[in-house]
Amino acid sequence: MSNAAGAYKALERRFHRLSVLGGVGGILHWDQSVMMPDGGAEARGEQLATLSVLSHELLTAPDMADLLDAAGAEGLADWPAANLALMRRQHAHATAVPADLVEARSKACSKCEMAWRTARKNSDFAAILPHLREVVRLTREMAEIKAAALGLDPYDALLDQYDPGNRAERIDPVFDDLATFLPPLLEAVLERQAAEAPLVLPQGPFPVDSQAALGRRLMAAAGFDFNRGRLDVSLHPFCGGGPDDIRITTRYDEGDFTQSLMGVLHETGHALYELGLPEAPWRHQPIGEARGMTVHESQSLLVEMQACRSPAFLEFAAPLIREAFGVSGPAYEADMLRRLYTRVERGFIRVDADEVTYPLHVILRYRLERAIVAGDLDVADLPGAWNDGMRDLLGVTPPDDRMGCLQDIHWYDGAIGYFPTYTLGAMMAAQLFASATEQQPDILPGIARGDFTPLVGWLRTNVHAHGSRYSADELLDRATGAPLSTAAFKAHLQRRYLGA
Amino acid sequence: MSNAAGAYKALERRFHRLSVLGGVGGILHWDQSVMMPDGGAEARGEQLATLSVLSHELLTAPDMADLLDAAGAEGLADWPAANLALMRRQHAHATAVPADLVEARSKACSKCEMAWRTARKNSDFAAILPHLREVVRLTREMAEIKAAALGLDPYDALLDQYDPGNRAERIDPVFDDLATFLPPLLEAVLERQAAEAPLVLPQGPFPVDSQAALGRRLMAAAGFDFNRGRLDVSLHPFCGGGPDDIRITTRYDEGDFTQSLMGVLHETGHALYELGLPEAPWRHQPIGEARGMTVHESQSLLVEMQACRSPAFLEFAAPLIREAFGVSGPAYEADMLRRLYTRVERGFIRVDADEVTYPLHVILRYRLERAIVAGDLDVADLPGAWNDGMRDLLGVTPPDDRMGCLQDIHWYDGAIGYFPTYTLGAMMAAQLFASATEQQPDILPGIARGDFTPLVGWLRTNVHAHGSRYSADELLDRATGAPLSTAAFKAHLQRRYLGA
Repeated sequence: MSNAAGAYKALERRFHRLSVLGGVGGILHWDQSVMMPDGGAEARGEQLATLSVLSHELLTAPDMADLLDAAGAEGLADWPAANLALMRRQHAHATAVPADLVEARSKACSKCEMAWRTARKNSDFAAILPHLREVVRLTREMAEIKAAALGLDPYDALLDQYDPGNRAERIDPVFDDLATFLPPLLEAVLERQAAEAPLVLPQGPFPVDSQAALGRRLMAAAGFDFNRGRLDVSLHPFCGGGPDDIRITTRYDEGDFTQSLMGVLHETGHALYELGLPEAPWRHQPIGEARGMTVHESQSLLVEMQACRSPAFLEFAAPLIREAFGVSGPAYEADMLRRLYTRVERGFIRVDADEVTYPLHVILRYRLERAIVAGDLDVADLPGAWNDGMRDLLGVTPPDDRMGCLQDIHWYDGAIGYFPTYTLGAMMAAQLFASATEQQPDILPGIARGDFTPLVGWLRTNVHAHGSRYSADELLDRATGAPLSTAAFKAHLQRRYLGA
Repeated sequence: MSNAAGAYKALERRFHRLSVLGGVGGILHWDQSVMMPDGGAEARGEQLATLSVLSHELLTAPDMADLLDAAGAEGLADWPAANLALMRRQHAHATAVPADLVEARSKACSKCEMAWRTARKNSDFAAILPHLREVVRLTREMAEIKAAALGLDPYDALLDQYDPGNRAERIDPVFDDLATFLPPLLEAVLERQAAEAPLVLPQGPFPVDSQAALGRRLMAAAGFDFNRGRLDVSLHPFCGGGPDDIRITTRYDEGDFTQSLMGVLHETGHALYELGLPEAPWRHQPIGEARGMTVHESQSLLVEMQACRSPAFLEFAAPLIREAFGVSGPAYEADMLRRLYTRVERGFIRVDADEVTYPLHVILRYRLERAIVAGDLDVADLPGAWNDGMRDLLGVTPPDDRMGCLQDIHWYDGAIGYFPTYTLGAMMAAQLFASATEQQPDILPGIARGDFTPLVGWLRTNVHAHGSRYSADELLDRATGAPLSTAAFKAHLQRRYLGA
C-alpha cells in the first residue's frame, strides 16, 4: 500500500462518504418500515431521493474518470487494487445510463408498484399490464445501454447489479440440472411424507411478547450481537442498517409462532454476515461491503435451512419453545417440530414455499424474465406462460393471477435479474455448510447445544471477512475447494428429505 | 413572485436540499436517542458529521455570495425577500468562522461534554475546568469573529444563533425587572402554600403502559396528529424530527406519573408548532422554519404552563387519570392535582424548578455567561459566583457543585447564549395566551372540555403559520399588539399563585 497515495487516496475518501450516506439511507429505510407514521411518507420519499441524487452526483463527478485512471497507474497492492476495481464497477454502472432514463425508469417503477398493490388484491393483470409494459420497456433500454457499456449481454447487465460477476450462461446449466432433479425428488418426498402419521400442529395463542423473547433468545444463541443490532416488527421482514448497527425485523402471528421464528433466524444469518464484514481501513470501502445478493442469501439460508431446521438444533430449541409459551405435548417435541419445519407441498406461493419446491418457483421466474428481457416473451402473455411453467415444474396451476404472476413485487418494482440469487444462495449455503462441518468438527456439536461460535467463526474467516475481495465463485472455491455446483444442495435434500 | 427567477430560484433549490438534509439529521438524532444500540454510536457520529460537512459545503459553496447578491437585485416580493434575508443570515453565520476553528471547537465541546458526565457525577469541578476553559476560549474566539462579521457584540453573536435578532440590551431590563419582582413573590407564595393543608401525593406504582396510553390520550386532546408523529421513550425528553413527522419523547417513572405526563404535554407544544409551520412552497425554505428557540419554548410552555396546569384542564384530566390507573381518592381529585402542579419551592435544580423560581435559575445563568463571554468572570471562579448568585436570587446555597454549576449540560457542550430563551419563552407564552383567550372566547371553555381546537387554531394563524417571516418581537406585536414585556407573565403568576 506504500504507493496508494494521491488519486487512490482521494477515491477512498469519496467512496467512504458514499458508503456513510448509504448507511444513512439504510436507517431511514428501516425507520420507514418500522417506526414512521403514515403521514411522513412523502417527506421520507424526498429524503431518500435527495440522498440518492447526492450519492449519484458524488459517484459521477466530472473528475471521477480521471481519478480512476490515475489511481490505476499508482501500482496498488492487492486489496487496494481490488478495491479500485470495485470503484470502477460502481462508476461504470452509475455513468452508463443517462440521468433522464434513470429518472423515467424510477418513476415508472414507483407508479407500477403502487398500481400492483391494487392489481394483486383484485387479481387484475389487465390493470397492471400498461404499467408493467412501461417498466419492462425502460428496463430493457437500460439493460441494452449497460450491456454495450460493460461489454455484457443485456440480461447479464441486469443480473450483474445484484450478483456482481455472475452470468446467465453459468446459471442455465445449474438451473436445468435442478429442473430435472427436483420434480422426481418432490414426488418421492410427498409420497414418503404422506405415509407418515398426521402432523400435530402447535395451537396458539402465542403472545407476541413471548415470541419476541424467544426469537431474541435464539438470535443470541446464533451469535447475534444485540450491542450492535435490534429486532423489531415490520409488515415485510428484512435485514437493514449496516455492519455497525444491523436491524432485523419480523412479523408475528399469535396463532402460529413457527414461521416468524424461522424468519427471525433467516434474517439473523443476513445480520451475521454484515456484522462480520471487514473493519477499518476497509469498512466503508467497496471492498468492505457484502458481495452481492447470492452470497447474502447464502448466509441467511445457511443459518436458517442448514443449521436451524436441522434435527440437532430443533432438539436444542424445543425445550426453549415449551418454556417460552408454557406449553407441552406432542406438537412441541423436537421430532414433530422437525417434521413441521421440513414439510413439503406443491404450493402456488414462492414466499411460503419449502426448501424442495422453492428452486422450482425461482427457475420459473428466471426463465420468464430472461425471455422478457430478450424480447422473446411479450408481457401480455405472461399469465399464460406463468401457468404453463407452474404446471411443467410444479405440477399445479394457479387458480388466478393473484396466486400466479401477480404474487411477487419484484418485476413490478423493476427488480428484473434478482430472482436467481435466491436459489444460487441456497446452493451456496449447502456447499459452504458441507465444507464447514467437514473442516471444523466442532460446528455440528455446537449447533446441537445452541452454541454457534464454531460455525460463525468459520464463516467469519471464510466468508464474512473477505467482504467483496473475491467474486462469489472465487470465494466458494477458496472456502470449499470448488466453484458453485448443485452437488452439495442435491445431497442435502436427499439426506434430509429421503434419509438417503 | 413574478420576478423570483434566476438566482433566487437557484437559492431556493439549494436551501430546499439543505432543509431536507436537516430533516435526515433529525431522524438520525431521534433514532440515536430512542432506538440505536450502544455499539452504533461511533458509526452514527460519523453519519451525523458527514451530513454536517455536506450541509456546510452546500451553504458555503464558492458561488453562494454571488447568488445572494444577484437574487437581491431581482426585486422580490414580500415572502421571497424575507426568505432571502434568512438565507443571507444562515450564509453569514456559516462563512464567518474559519473551518479549522469550527472543527477545533466542535472537538473541544465533545471532549468537554464527555468529561462533564463524570465530573458531574463526582461533583468535581476541578476535573472539568481545563476542558471548560478550552470550550470557553474557542467560543469567545468564535463570538468575536462572528461579532465582527455580523456587526454585533460578541454575546449577541452567540445569542443570535438561538434567538435570531434578539440582543442582550433587550433582555437586561426584562430580567432585571423579574429579578426584582420574583423574590418577594416567591416569599409570599411559599407562605401561602405553607398555610394550606398538607398535599396528598399519588401513590404508585403506575405501570408504564398505562402512563403512555394516558399521555397519548391527552396529546390527542391537545391536538397532536398521530398520523404525523410519535411518542417514545428516551433518557432526556425532547421533540425531534420535523413538520411532516414529529417525534416527542419522555421518560417514565413507575413511582410518579405526574412529571412525565406534564413533560409529554410540554413536548406536545413544541410538536404543534412544527406541525403548523407553513406548507409548500415555504416548507423546506428558511422562512418556513420555526423562528428560534424563544418562540419554540413559548409554544411548549403555553401548552404546558398556561393551558395544561390550569384548573380547567386539570378538571378535565383528573377523571382520565383515575381511569387510566384504576385509582381514586383525594390525591387524584382535580384540586389536589392543581396544588401539586403549582407547588413552589426554593430548589437547586433548574429542570426540577417550578414556574415561579425557574426564571431565577435562568437569570443566574444568563448573568454568568454574559460575564464569561465579556471576560469579566474567569471560569475558575464559576462555582463561587454560582453559589453567590443562588443565594442572592433564590436564597439557597447548593451543597456541592453537582447541585450547582455542574448541573446543566449546556456550557459544557458549548451552548452559551441559549439559557435566556427559556424565560423569554415563558414570558412570550403568558403574553400570547392572555391575548389569545381575550380575542377568542372559545379557547378557555375548549381547554376545560379537553378540546384544544380553538387554541391551536389561534396559534396556527397567529404564530405557527408565520414560520420565520417575522422576528419574535414582530410576531408578538402582530399577535398581541405589543412587543415582549413582563406584564402578562407577572399578572399570570400573581393570579395563579396568589389568587390576585
